[in-house]
Amino acid sequence: MREVVVLGVGMTPFQRNTKHTFATMGREAIFKAIEDAQVNPGKVEAGYCGTVFGGSMSGQKIFKETGLTGMPVINVENACSSGSTAFREAWLAVASGLHDMVIVVGAEKLSDLGKGPLPLQMEDVEASQGMVMPALYAMRAKRYQVDNGATDEDLALVAVKNRKNGSLNPYAQFRKEVTVDEVVSSRMVANPLTLYQSCPTGDGASAVIICDSKTAKKYTTKPIKLLATTLSSGKFMNGFRDMTSPEITLRCSKKAYEASGCEPKDIDVAEVHDAFTIAEILYYEALGFCEKGEGVQFLREGKTSLDGSIPVNPSGGLISRGHPLGATGLAQITEVVWQLRGEAGNRQIKGANIGLTHCTGGGIWGFDHGACSISILGR
Amino acid sequence: MREVVVLGVGMTPFQRNTKHTFATMGREAIFKAIEDAQVNPGKVEAGYCGTVFGGSMSGQKIFKETGLTGMPVINVENACSSGSTAFREAWLAVASGLHDMVIVVGAEKLSDLGKGPLPLQMEDVEASQGMVMPALYAMRAKRYQVDNGATDEDLALVAVKNRKNGSLNPYAQFRKEVTVDEVVSSRMVANPLTLYQSCPTGDGASAVIICDSKTAKKYTTKPIKLLATTLSSGKFMNGFRDMTSPEITLRCSKKAYEASGCEPKDIDVAEVHDAFTIAEILYYEALGFCEKGEGVQFLREGKTSLDGSIPVNPSGGLISRGHPLGATGLAQITEVVWQLRGEAGNRQIKGANIGLTHCTGGGIWGFDHGACSISILGR
Repeated sequence: MREVVVLGVGMTPFQRNTKHTFATMGREAIFKAIEDAQVNPGKVEAGYCGTVFGGSMSGQKIFKETGLTGMPVINVENACSSGSTAFREAWLAVASGLHDMVIVVGAEKLSDLGKGPLPLQMEDVEASQGMVMPALYAMRAKRYQVDNGATDEDLALVAVKNRKNGSLNPYAQFRKEVTVDEVVSSRMVANPLTLYQSCPTGDGASAVIICDSKTAKKYTTKPIKLLATTLSSGKFMNGFRDMTSPEITLRCSKKAYEASGCEPKDIDVAEVHDAFTIAEILYYEALGFCEKGEGVQFLREGKTSLDGSIPVNPSGGLISRGHPLGATGLAQITEVVWQLRGEAGNRQIKGANIGLTHCTGGGIWGFDHGACSISILGR
Repeated sequence: MREVVVLGVGMTPFQRNTKHTFATMGREAIFKAIEDAQVNPGKVEAGYCGTVFGGSMSGQKIFKETGLTGMPVINVENACSSGSTAFREAWLAVASGLHDMVIVVGAEKLSDLGKGPLPLQMEDVEASQGMVMPALYAMRAKRYQVDNGATDEDLALVAVKNRKNGSLNPYAQFRKEVTVDEVVSSRMVANPLTLYQSCPTGDGASAVIICDSKTAKKYTTKPIKLLATTLSSGKFMNGFRDMTSPEITLRCSKKAYEASGCEPKDIDVAEVHDAFTIAEILYYEALGFCEKGEGVQFLREGKTSLDGSIPVNPSGGLISRGHPLGATGLAQITEVVWQLRGEAGNRQIKGANIGLTHCTGGGIWGFDHGACSISILGR
């Protein structure tokens, strides 16, 4: 396999009720990525698109008015991991030598679905009995609180941190800081998780251009290298499980660390899937940033703040930057690329050399997620 | 790139209003493919799923109760080419060396969408103004009739041939032969295309297991080799175009012939995308089986019948076997594998050595299709 590098990134601001369409958002992200990469669009050999609700031929709808036509277009779905799974397929297309330069776009316009929760699938037995995402994460939170002495105020610290980071990110859906009191006293969603502890629905798009490292030499002297990108699905097994151990993330990150030659201590910045506050704490542990059960103390000590030893979600994460499903995975890549290049403005982490992105989602069987994808990038 | 071979295939009967669910159909196809391949399911390293209307996490919903869990699962959409695009991604995963053995499943339960045409997308300007698939193909048919002297009865010959083939296929949705008179006098859909000249909606699933040729040696002495698999999207260009020349198929087949080292004359059997009768005639020409404008004469002479020089759609094609979108591309692969192995029963083509599959679909801009995928297989 060839070494693959990220040449260009771009994204729209994430927001509710955008006036743009699914396709025009995608195009905005693509044009920004092309400008960032400083490549002739004619050099792009294939296009991947990640989306959940973008409908049939989602990528073609976006690409058809960009001039990026005629090339192979592959549309990929994997719930919250749709964009990052599209990125994995694009990596494979370049790493294998099939294509030299590929573009990946992720887009979602959740506003089109109206207010309220995302549509559920009737054949999903768990969801139809109430085990929807907020409920599942609430159960995890309660268990974690009992096991590790975390308070409601502790959980709120994730939202406070990520809202603060988001306030520094012009692309974030929420740019206003919040206090622990405001988080805890906001509307209850699923005890102990309040509204401000839950990621919002929203609209947005992001795009990434990748190529092999030889081709990259024509365009940049400072490529961001893709050290590993891995994908796993849940094991969907019956029986007792430790609901505070996200097995799929543990397994997927083990593969990513092995493939990249990195260890958790090497990571300088991480974008992780904070769909709810408790999720981020569980992922500190599952990704090996701290020991199991110590995530809450790690958070309290500020280790994952912008000036901490391993800043997590400098973009604001899902909770503050927002979570337009198909766009999220590529927005994470975009943020890490900006951080590694030193282009992250007021939220820049000094001297970041290696970054990790982590996307997981799709509850198919209780606490097992349908997909988890992790990438490790280095400069 | 490594040589990739097909180790096992399987499919459900295609039918309307099946009692099975999307997931159980997918599993039936998977279990048949595993049995056919005679592999330990634990050797399968990744799973791809092609579907249009299967919903989020379509592959995970199918795989979760087959024991094929924990592996990377990638869900792929490309309208009528969804299954064949998933197959292309699976080919890349094996050809690149990333995985040794991969399963691809395609499934669709169109009955769930109720009666009537498939749901249209409001942002599709062409469709919203009436340029739906039957209308587009009817315009092509009229143009073709004027240019090449084809009669309504000529067009009907495609349906007569494919229904006859389907009558020999236990997996076909329609297993009753029809006459030219019956085809021409069936309900008009879009002049000159009648009901019997249009592929039906239906339910079904199909699955294919592929691996590298070295791994295949452990399981079979008669592997079916994948000589090429190519994918293209439309060029979506304004201006005049020859509506009887399917540009995307011309371009995609040129790539496939080049990659495989084959020429049209080498093809012994082909499964092509006969969404409507006229389509099959246009594809004879676009795939190089005959010259442009000569497709109708080629058909009249029986060249594409089971005992002709290049039998087309021995399975019955979309018109008779049926067209559950995501399942179609892999059903085509399945039929060609059966034909090359000599396992096609009463519809067996003697001495078939090389076969071609062709899937195209997704009208995005008038006469341009969104995707076209072609595979060439050999024994």
